[in-house]
Amino acid sequence: MKTLTEYLWFETKQRHELVRITDEVAALTKKSGIAEGMALVSAMHITAGVYVNDDEPGLFEDIWKWLEHLAPARPDYRHHQTGEDNGDAHLKSMLVHHQVIVPITKGRLDLGTWQHVFYAEFDGQRRKRVIVKIMGE
Amino acid sequence: MKTLTEYLWFETKQRHELVRITDEVAALTKKSGIAEGMALVSAMHITAGVYVNDDEPGLFEDIWKWLEHLAPARPDYRHHQTGEDNGDAHLKSMLVHHQVIVPITKGRLDLGTWQHVFYAEFDGQRRKRVIVKIMGE
Amino acid sequence: MKTLTEYLWFETKQRHELVRITDEVAALTKKSGIAEGMALVSAMHITAGVYVNDDEPGLFEDIWKWLEHLAPARPDYRHHQTGEDNGDAHLKSMLVHHQVIVPITKGRLDLGTWQHVFYAEFDGQRRKRVIVKIMGE
Repeated sequence: MKTLTEYLWFETKQRHELVRITDEVAALTKKSGIAEGMALVSAMHITAGVYVNDDEPGLFEDIWKWLEHLAPARPDYRHHQTGEDNGDAHLKSMLVHHQVIVPITKGRLDLGTWQHVFYAEFDGQRRKRVIVKIMGE
Repeated sequence: MKTLTEYLWFETKQRHELVRITDEVAALTKKSGIAEGMALVSAMHITAGVYVNDDEPGLFEDIWKWLEHLAPARPDYRHHQTGEDNGDAHLKSMLVHHQVIVPITKGRLDLGTWQHVFYAEFDGQRRKRVIVKIMGE
Repeated sequence: MKTLTEYLWFETKQRHELVRITDEVAALTKKSGIAEGMALVSAMHITAGVYVNDDEPGLFEDIWKWLEHLAPARPDYRHHQTGEDNGDAHLKSMLVHHQVIVPITKGRLDLGTWQHVFYAEFDGQRRKRVIVKIMGE
Protein backbone atom coordinates (compact mmCIF):
# COMPACT_ATOMS: atom_id res chain seq x y z
CA MET A 1 0.00 0.00 0.00
CA LYS A 2 1.15 3.51 -0.79
CA THR A 3 -0.07 6.83 0.54
CA LEU A 4 0.54 10.45 -0.39
CA THR A 5 -0.46 13.43 1.76
CA GLU A 6 -0.39 16.99 0.51
CA TYR A 7 -2.09 20.26 1.38
CA LEU A 8 -3.59 22.74 -1.07
CA TRP A 9 -3.55 26.36 0.15
CA PHE A 10 -6.13 29.01 -0.72
CA GLU A 11 -6.49 32.69 -0.06
CA THR A 12 -9.47 33.86 -2.06
CA LYS A 13 -9.95 37.49 -3.05
CA GLN A 14 -13.67 37.33 -2.41
CA ARG A 15 -15.40 36.21 0.76
CA HIS A 16 -17.37 33.68 -1.31
CA GLU A 17 -15.60 31.83 -4.09
CA LEU A 18 -15.67 28.53 -5.98
CA VAL A 19 -12.25 27.25 -7.05
CA ARG A 20 -11.89 24.33 -9.46
CA ILE A 21 -9.21 21.96 -8.16
CA THR A 22 -9.56 18.92 -10.43
CA ASP A 23 -6.18 19.55 -12.07
CA GLU A 24 -4.38 19.86 -8.73
CA VAL A 25 -5.88 16.59 -7.47
CA ALA A 26 -4.99 14.89 -10.78
CA ALA A 27 -1.39 16.13 -10.53
CA LEU A 28 -1.05 14.78 -6.98
CA THR A 29 -2.48 11.46 -8.12
CA LYS A 30 0.19 11.24 -10.81
CA LYS A 31 2.84 12.20 -8.26
CA SER A 32 1.65 9.46 -5.88
CA GLY A 33 2.33 6.72 -8.43
CA ILE A 34 -0.87 5.03 -7.25
CA ALA A 35 -2.74 3.13 -9.97
CA GLU A 36 -5.75 1.85 -8.01
CA GLY A 37 -7.05 3.68 -4.99
CA MET A 38 -8.92 6.64 -3.58
CA ALA A 39 -8.09 10.32 -3.14
CA LEU A 40 -9.71 12.01 -0.15
CA VAL A 41 -10.09 15.75 -0.73
CA SER A 42 -11.18 17.38 2.51
CA ALA A 43 -11.41 20.98 3.71
CA MET A 44 -9.55 21.59 6.98
CA HIS A 45 -11.85 24.47 7.93
CA ILE A 46 -15.39 24.59 9.18
CA THR A 47 -16.46 27.42 6.91
CA ALA A 48 -15.55 25.83 3.57
CA GLY A 49 -16.69 22.86 1.50
CA VAL A 50 -15.50 20.48 -1.19
CA TYR A 51 -17.94 19.11 -3.75
CA VAL A 52 -18.12 17.54 -7.21
CA ASN A 53 -20.31 19.11 -9.88
CA ASP A 54 -20.31 20.93 -13.23
CA ASP A 55 -17.78 23.60 -14.28
CA GLU A 56 -20.38 26.03 -15.66
CA PRO A 57 -20.53 29.73 -14.67
CA GLY A 58 -24.33 29.95 -14.88
CA LEU A 59 -24.57 27.07 -12.45
CA PHE A 60 -22.15 28.84 -10.08
CA GLU A 61 -24.65 31.69 -9.83
CA ASP A 62 -27.48 29.25 -9.23
CA ILE A 63 -25.48 27.51 -6.50
CA TRP A 64 -24.69 30.77 -4.65
CA LYS A 65 -28.28 31.97 -4.85
CA TRP A 66 -29.48 28.60 -3.60
CA LEU A 67 -26.97 28.43 -0.72
CA GLU A 68 -27.86 31.95 0.31
CA HIS A 69 -31.54 31.03 0.29
CA LEU A 70 -31.09 27.85 2.38
CA ALA A 71 -28.36 29.13 4.73
CA PRO A 72 -28.56 32.93 4.63
CA ALA A 73 -26.05 35.41 6.00
CA ARG A 74 -27.91 36.99 8.93
CA PRO A 75 -26.88 39.04 11.95
CA ASP A 76 -28.81 37.01 14.51
CA TYR A 77 -26.97 33.68 14.68
CA ARG A 78 -26.13 32.69 18.25
CA HIS A 79 -22.63 31.85 17.04
CA HIS A 80 -22.08 35.59 16.53
CA GLN A 81 -22.14 36.13 20.29
CA THR A 82 -18.57 34.77 20.22
CA GLY A 83 -17.57 37.76 18.11
CA GLU A 84 -17.74 35.88 14.81
CA ASP A 85 -19.91 36.99 11.88
CA ASN A 86 -19.78 33.80 9.80
CA GLY A 87 -22.64 31.68 11.15
CA ASP A 88 -23.97 31.21 7.63
CA ALA A 89 -20.59 29.85 6.47
CA HIS A 90 -20.77 27.00 9.01
CA LEU A 91 -24.24 26.02 7.80
CA LYS A 92 -23.24 26.28 4.13
CA SER A 93 -20.29 23.99 4.89
CA MET A 94 -22.62 21.41 6.43
CA LEU A 95 -25.02 21.67 3.48
CA VAL A 96 -22.40 21.22 0.75
CA HIS A 97 -20.31 18.77 2.84
CA HIS A 98 -16.62 19.36 3.44
CA GLN A 99 -15.13 16.42 1.56
CA VAL A 100 -15.27 14.04 -1.37
CA ILE A 101 -13.49 10.84 -2.32
CA VAL A 102 -12.28 10.64 -5.91
CA PRO A 103 -11.70 7.09 -7.16
CA ILE A 104 -8.41 6.39 -8.97
CA THR A 105 -8.33 3.78 -11.74
CA LYS A 106 -5.31 2.95 -13.91
CA GLY A 107 -3.46 5.91 -12.46
CA ARG A 108 -6.11 8.50 -13.28
CA LEU A 109 -9.04 10.20 -11.53
CA ASP A 110 -12.06 8.07 -12.42
CA LEU A 111 -14.58 10.90 -12.82
CA GLY A 112 -17.54 11.22 -15.18
CA THR A 113 -17.22 13.51 -18.22
CA TRP A 114 -18.70 16.55 -16.53
CA GLN A 115 -17.49 15.97 -13.00
CA HIS A 116 -15.09 18.50 -11.52
CA VAL A 117 -13.84 18.89 -7.98
CA PHE A 118 -14.45 22.30 -6.38
CA TYR A 119 -13.26 24.04 -3.26
CA ALA A 120 -16.10 26.21 -1.96
CA GLU A 121 -14.98 29.13 0.16
CA PHE A 122 -17.69 30.58 2.42
CA ASP A 123 -15.51 32.88 4.55
CA GLY A 124 -12.38 33.72 2.61
CA GLN A 125 -9.81 36.47 2.23
CA ARG A 126 -7.44 34.56 4.52
CA ARG A 127 -5.21 31.50 4.18
CA LYS A 128 -7.01 28.19 4.37
CA ARG A 129 -6.20 24.68 3.27
CA VAL A 130 -7.48 21.37 1.96
CA ILE A 131 -5.86 18.03 2.63
CA VAL A 132 -5.45 15.59 -0.26
CA LYS A 133 -4.75 12.10 1.04
CA ILE A 134 -4.29 9.37 -1.54
CA MET A 135 -4.27 5.67 -0.63
CA GLY A 136 -3.86 2.67 -2.89
CA GLU A 137 -1.31 0.61 -4.72
CA MET B 1 -4.14 -4.85 -0.65
CA LYS B 2 -6.84 -5.77 -3.17
CA THR B 3 -9.12 -3.54 -5.22
CA LEU B 4 -12.14 -4.15 -7.40
CA THR B 5 -13.64 -1.56 -9.76
CA GLU B 6 -16.99 -2.01 -11.45
CA TYR B 7 -19.64 0.24 -12.95
CA LEU B 8 -23.40 -0.05 -12.43
CA TRP B 9 -25.48 1.25 -15.34
CA PHE B 10 -28.91 2.85 -15.05
CA GLU B 11 -31.50 4.03 -17.53
CA THR B 12 -34.54 4.96 -15.49
CA LYS B 13 -38.02 5.10 -17.02
CA GLN B 14 -38.91 8.19 -15.04
CA ARG B 15 -37.01 11.44 -14.88
CA HIS B 16 -36.92 11.11 -11.08
CA GLU B 17 -36.34 7.71 -9.57
CA LEU B 18 -34.87 6.04 -6.49
CA VAL B 19 -33.21 2.67 -7.16
CA ARG B 20 -32.12 0.39 -4.32
CA ILE B 21 -28.65 -0.97 -5.07
CA THR B 22 -27.66 -2.66 -1.78
CA ASP B 23 -27.77 -6.12 -3.37
CA GLU B 24 -25.56 -5.08 -6.30
CA VAL B 25 -22.96 -3.57 -3.96
CA ALA B 26 -23.08 -6.69 -1.76
CA ALA B 27 -22.57 -8.95 -4.80
CA LEU B 28 -19.53 -6.94 -5.91
CA THR B 29 -18.14 -7.13 -2.39
CA LYS B 30 -18.43 -10.91 -2.49
CA LYS B 31 -16.80 -10.96 -5.94
CA SER B 32 -13.90 -8.83 -4.67
CA GLY B 33 -12.90 -11.41 -2.08
CA ILE B 34 -12.19 -8.54 0.30
CA ALA B 35 -12.87 -9.31 3.96
CA GLU B 36 -11.95 -5.99 5.58
CA GLY B 37 -12.21 -2.72 3.69
CA MET B 38 -14.42 -0.04 2.20
CA ALA B 39 -16.69 0.15 -0.85
CA LEU B 40 -16.97 3.58 -2.45
CA VAL B 41 -20.28 3.95 -4.30
CA SER B 42 -20.19 7.15 -6.31
CA ALA B 43 -22.39 8.61 -9.06
CA MET B 44 -20.42 9.60 -12.18
CA HIS B 45 -22.96 12.28 -13.13
CA ILE B 46 -23.69 15.70 -11.73
CA THR B 47 -27.45 15.26 -11.76
CA ALA B 48 -27.67 12.12 -9.62
CA GLY B 49 -26.92 11.14 -6.04
CA VAL B 50 -26.11 8.13 -3.88
CA TYR B 51 -27.32 7.95 -0.30
CA VAL B 52 -28.05 5.52 2.53
CA ASN B 53 -31.45 5.47 4.16
CA ASP B 54 -34.62 3.42 4.69
CA ASP B 55 -36.30 1.25 2.03
CA GLU B 56 -39.84 2.47 2.72
CA PRO B 57 -42.19 3.74 -0.03
CA GLY B 58 -43.87 6.35 2.18
CA LEU B 59 -40.45 7.81 2.92
CA PHE B 60 -39.65 7.92 -0.81
CA GLU B 61 -42.61 10.26 -1.26
CA ASP B 62 -41.48 12.39 1.66
CA ILE B 63 -37.96 12.59 0.20
CA TRP B 64 -39.17 13.71 -3.23
CA LYS B 65 -41.52 16.31 -1.79
CA TRP B 66 -38.71 17.60 0.43
CA LEU B 67 -36.13 17.73 -2.38
CA GLU B 68 -38.61 19.53 -4.61
CA HIS B 69 -39.28 22.04 -1.84
CA LEU B 70 -35.58 22.74 -1.13
CA ALA B 71 -34.28 22.55 -4.72
CA PRO B 72 -37.31 23.12 -6.97
CA ALA B 73 -37.55 22.57 -10.71
CA ARG B 74 -37.89 26.10 -12.07
CA PRO B 75 -37.46 27.72 -15.48
CA ASP B 76 -35.26 30.60 -14.34
CA TYR B 77 -31.96 28.94 -13.40
CA ARG B 78 -29.00 30.66 -15.05
CA HIS B 79 -27.71 27.21 -15.98
CA HIS B 80 -30.63 26.95 -18.42
CA GLN B 81 -29.06 29.64 -20.61
CA THR B 82 -26.74 26.84 -21.81
CA GLY B 83 -29.78 25.06 -23.27
CA GLU B 84 -30.16 22.69 -20.31
CA ASP B 85 -33.36 22.39 -18.27
CA ASN B 86 -32.00 20.46 -15.30
CA GLY B 87 -30.71 23.17 -12.94
CA ASP B 88 -32.71 21.66 -10.09
CA ALA B 89 -31.05 18.27 -10.64
CA HIS B 90 -27.59 19.76 -10.00
CA LEU B 91 -28.77 21.29 -6.72
CA LYS B 92 -30.57 18.11 -5.65
CA SER B 93 -27.32 16.19 -6.33
CA MET B 94 -25.39 18.58 -4.08
CA LEU B 95 -28.03 18.32 -1.35
CA VAL B 96 -28.17 14.51 -1.25
CA HIS B 97 -24.43 14.11 -1.96
CA HIS B 98 -23.21 11.95 -4.83
CA GLN B 99 -21.42 9.21 -2.91
CA VAL B 100 -21.21 7.00 0.14
CA ILE B 101 -18.63 4.65 1.60
CA VAL B 102 -19.94 1.30 2.81
CA PRO B 103 -17.67 -0.43 5.35
CA ILE B 104 -16.91 -4.13 4.74
CA THR B 105 -16.36 -6.40 7.74
CA LYS B 106 -15.76 -10.16 7.58
CA GLY B 107 -16.57 -10.11 3.87
CA ARG B 108 -19.97 -8.43 4.22
CA LEU B 109 -21.42 -4.93 4.00
CA ASP B 110 -21.37 -3.64 7.57
CA LEU B 111 -24.66 -1.73 7.46
CA GLY B 112 -27.26 -1.18 10.17
CA THR B 113 -30.48 -3.19 10.07
CA TRP B 114 -32.46 -0.57 8.16
CA GLN B 115 -29.69 0.91 6.05
CA HIS B 116 -29.96 0.51 2.29
CA VAL B 117 -27.90 2.09 -0.48
CA PHE B 118 -29.88 4.06 -3.06
CA TYR B 119 -29.10 5.57 -6.43
CA ALA B 120 -31.12 8.79 -6.77
CA GLU B 121 -31.80 9.82 -10.36
CA PHE B 122 -32.71 13.50 -10.80
CA ASP B 123 -32.51 13.70 -14.61
CA GLY B 124 -33.00 10.23 -16.02
CA GLN B 125 -34.39 8.49 -19.09
CA ARG B 126 -30.83 8.10 -20.42
CA ARG B 127 -27.85 5.86 -19.64
CA LYS B 128 -25.90 6.86 -16.56
CA ARG B 129 -23.51 5.07 -14.26
CA VAL B 130 -22.16 4.64 -10.76
CA ILE B 131 -18.66 3.50 -9.93
CA VAL B 132 -18.19 0.93 -7.19
CA LYS B 133 -14.58 0.84 -6.03
CA ILE B 134 -13.70 -1.61 -3.29
CA MET B 135 -10.41 -1.49 -1.40
CA GLY B 136 -9.15 -3.71 1.38
CA GLU B 137 -7.59 -7.05 2.10
CA MET C 1 -2.34 -2.96 5.21
CA LYS C 2 -3.97 -2.87 8.62
CA THR C 3 -7.58 -2.35 9.59
CA LEU C 4 -9.41 -1.75 12.85
CA THR C 5 -13.18 -1.95 13.27
CA GLU C 6 -14.97 -0.75 16.37
CA TYR C 7 -18.45 0.42 17.28
CA LEU C 8 -19.35 3.43 19.40
CA TRP C 9 -22.65 3.12 21.27
CA PHE C 10 -24.98 5.97 22.14
CA GLU C 11 -28.15 6.31 24.16
CA THR C 12 -28.89 10.00 24.35
CA LYS C 13 -31.08 11.46 27.08
CA GLN C 14 -32.72 13.88 24.67
CA ARG C 15 -34.44 13.05 21.40
CA HIS C 16 -32.12 15.52 19.66
CA GLU C 17 -28.49 15.70 20.71
CA LEU C 18 -25.05 16.52 19.37
CA VAL C 19 -22.22 14.43 20.84
CA ARG C 20 -18.58 15.29 20.25
CA ILE C 21 -16.66 12.11 19.40
CA THR C 22 -13.27 13.42 18.26
CA ASP C 23 -11.50 11.95 21.31
CA GLU C 24 -13.04 8.52 20.82
CA VAL C 25 -11.99 8.44 17.15
CA ALA C 26 -8.49 9.62 18.10
CA ALA C 27 -8.19 6.89 20.74
CA LEU C 28 -9.20 4.21 18.23
CA THR C 29 -6.67 5.58 15.76
CA LYS C 30 -3.95 5.22 18.38
CA LYS C 31 -5.16 1.70 19.18
CA SER C 32 -5.03 0.76 15.48
CA GLY C 33 -1.31 1.50 15.23
CA ILE C 34 -1.97 2.97 11.79
CA ALA C 35 0.31 5.88 10.87
CA GLU C 36 -1.05 6.76 7.41
CA GLY C 37 -4.62 6.09 6.45
CA MET C 38 -8.27 6.98 6.78
CA ALA C 39 -10.88 6.55 9.52
CA LEU C 40 -14.44 6.11 8.32
CA VAL C 41 -16.93 7.26 10.98
CA SER C 42 -20.41 6.24 9.89
CA ALA C 43 -23.78 6.15 11.64
CA MET C 44 -25.47 2.73 11.41
CA HIS C 45 -28.94 4.26 11.70
CA ILE C 46 -31.09 6.18 9.26
CA THR C 47 -32.15 8.80 11.76
CA ALA C 48 -28.71 10.02 12.81
CA GLY C 49 -25.78 11.80 11.21
CA VAL C 50 -22.04 12.29 11.54
CA TYR C 51 -20.44 15.59 10.60
CA VAL C 52 -17.34 17.72 11.16
CA ASN C 53 -17.69 21.30 12.40
CA ASP C 54 -17.01 23.65 15.29
CA ASP C 55 -17.38 22.75 18.99
CA GLU C 56 -19.25 25.92 19.98
CA PRO C 57 -22.55 25.88 21.93
CA GLY C 58 -23.97 28.94 20.15
CA LEU C 59 -23.45 27.19 16.84
CA PHE C 60 -25.21 24.09 18.16
CA GLU C 61 -28.34 26.21 18.66
CA ASP C 62 -27.98 27.67 15.17
CA ILE C 63 -27.62 24.17 13.70
CA TRP C 64 -30.75 22.85 15.43
CA LYS C 65 -32.83 25.86 14.44
CA TRP C 66 -31.58 25.54 10.86
CA LEU C 67 -32.23 21.79 10.64
CA GLU C 68 -35.70 22.28 12.09
CA HIS C 69 -36.39 24.97 9.50
CA LEU C 70 -35.18 22.88 6.52
CA ALA C 71 -36.48 19.49 7.67
CA PRO C 72 -39.19 20.20 10.22
CA ALA C 73 -40.88 17.74 12.57
CA ARG C 74 -44.43 17.52 11.22
CA PRO C 75 -47.31 15.09 11.67
CA ASP C 76 -48.09 14.66 7.96
CA TYR C 77 -45.11 12.70 6.59
CA ARG C 78 -46.22 9.68 4.58
CA HIS C 79 -43.61 7.66 6.46
CA HIS C 80 -45.78 8.06 9.56
CA GLN C 81 -48.41 5.78 8.04
CA THR C 82 -46.08 2.93 9.04
CA GLY C 83 -46.62 3.90 12.69
CA GLU C 84 -43.38 5.89 12.95
CA ASP C 85 -43.24 9.53 14.00
CA ASN C 86 -39.68 10.33 12.92
CA GLY C 87 -40.00 11.39 9.27
CA ASP C 88 -38.06 14.56 9.98
CA ALA C 89 -35.17 12.55 11.43
CA HIS C 90 -34.69 10.70 8.12
CA LEU C 91 -34.56 13.99 6.22
CA LYS C 92 -32.21 15.59 8.75
CA SER C 93 -29.92 12.56 8.38
CA MET C 94 -29.83 13.01 4.60
CA LEU C 95 -29.14 16.74 4.98
CA VAL C 96 -26.25 16.41 7.43
CA HIS C 97 -24.96 13.18 5.83
CA HIS C 98 -24.39 10.05 7.90
CA GLN C 99 -20.62 9.73 7.62
CA VAL C 100 -17.24 11.37 7.37
CA ILE C 101 -13.72 10.22 6.60
CA VAL C 102 -11.00 11.54 8.89
CA PRO C 103 -7.50 11.43 7.39
CA ILE C 104 -4.73 9.98 9.57
CA THR C 105 -1.18 11.34 9.21
CA LYS C 106 1.82 10.31 11.33
CA GLY C 107 -0.51 8.36 13.62
CA ARG C 108 -2.84 11.26 14.39
CA LEU C 109 -6.17 12.59 13.13
CA ASP C 110 -5.22 15.17 10.50
CA LEU C 111 -7.94 17.72 11.29
CA GLY C 112 -7.88 21.50 11.12
CA THR C 113 -7.59 23.50 14.35
CA TRP C 114 -11.33 23.94 14.81
CA GLN C 115 -12.55 20.71 13.30
CA HIS C 116 -14.35 18.27 15.57
CA VAL C 117 -16.27 15.12 14.74
CA PHE C 118 -19.88 15.03 15.95
CA TYR C 119 -22.54 12.37 16.23
CA ALA C 120 -25.91 14.00 15.54
CA GLU C 121 -28.85 12.19 17.09
CA PHE C 122 -32.22 13.02 15.51
CA ASP C 123 -34.34 10.30 17.17
CA GLY C 124 -32.63 9.24 20.35
CA GLN C 125 -33.44 7.90 23.80
CA ARG C 126 -32.55 4.39 22.63
CA ARG C 127 -29.34 2.48 21.91
CA LYS C 128 -27.73 3.31 18.58
CA ARG C 129 -24.26 2.93 17.16
CA VAL C 130 -21.58 4.30 14.88
CA ILE C 131 -18.98 2.20 13.11
CA VAL C 132 -15.38 3.41 13.11
CA LYS C 133 -13.39 1.59 10.43
CA ILE C 134 -9.74 2.52 10.11
CA MET C 135 -7.61 1.45 7.13
CA GLY C 136 -3.97 2.19 6.40
CA GLU C 137 -0.47 1.12 7.26
